[in-house]
Amino acid sequence: MGFTEILRRIVDEEKDALCIAIVGTDGIVVEERLVDSQIDLASVGAEYSSILKDISKVSDSLRFGDVKEVVVFTDKAIVMLKGINKEYFILFAIKPDGNIGKGRFLLRREMPKLEKELQ
Amino acid sequence: MGFTEILRRIVDEEKDALCIAIVGTDGIVVEERLVDSQIDLASVGAEYSSILKDISKVSDSLRFGDVKEVVVFTDKAIVMLKGINKEYFILFAIKPDGNIGKGRFLLRREMPKLEKELQ
Repeated sequence: MGFTEILRRIVDEEKDALCIAIVGTDGIVVEERLVDSQIDLASVGAEYSSILKDISKVSDSLRFGDVKEVVVFTDKAIVMLKGINKEYFILFAIKPDGNIGKGRFLLRREMPKLEKELQ
Repeated sequence: MGFTEILRRIVDEEKDALCIAIVGTDGIVVEERLVDSQIDLASVGAEYSSILKDISKVSDSLRFGDVKEVVVFTDKAIVMLKGINKEYFILFAIKPDGNIGKGRFLLRREMPKLEKELQ
């Protein structure tokens, strides 16, 4: 199963999905699936990869260890960021009233396959 | 009911609590309650206030609206940040295997009282 199929599965099972992407830690979107076409995924990927880098630095300096996941709740979206490996993370945005537990579960469930694909 | 009492209530009801604090958006800790005495809450408050500011800027530039809450999952802690008003936020850290749903519920429940206290 390739990237495209994995992303499709996640989006299909989360009715409140807005977009999902595999993003490099350099901010480049490797693969994406857009439900809300108003989202500029290139910008979102770039901005959040920079945020994730900053949070990792802070976590390191506070001796909290590696950052495994970040969830940002905004007016327009809930954005989940979850590291796949040192080079890639997954970005999954759902509607602000979406089911965050379901979203996190889907990412966790598909993670082994993503790790394998991105080895 | 003052700040101290509100923070005490939250910590008492979350068995996995590590620390909780009311932090100014300038990074200064206004009130705190420490369960794990190894945590340097002054540094944690300062670093995460800066992270919250960066995330708000990004959210603004992506037109995602206001940031209401951020949750960071690290090896050593789950850190919840939730805005009280434009000047203060609450920082609540629990053990990495702690119940995030319970933690978020407690913050939500106490929020009206915190807002009132910080008017």
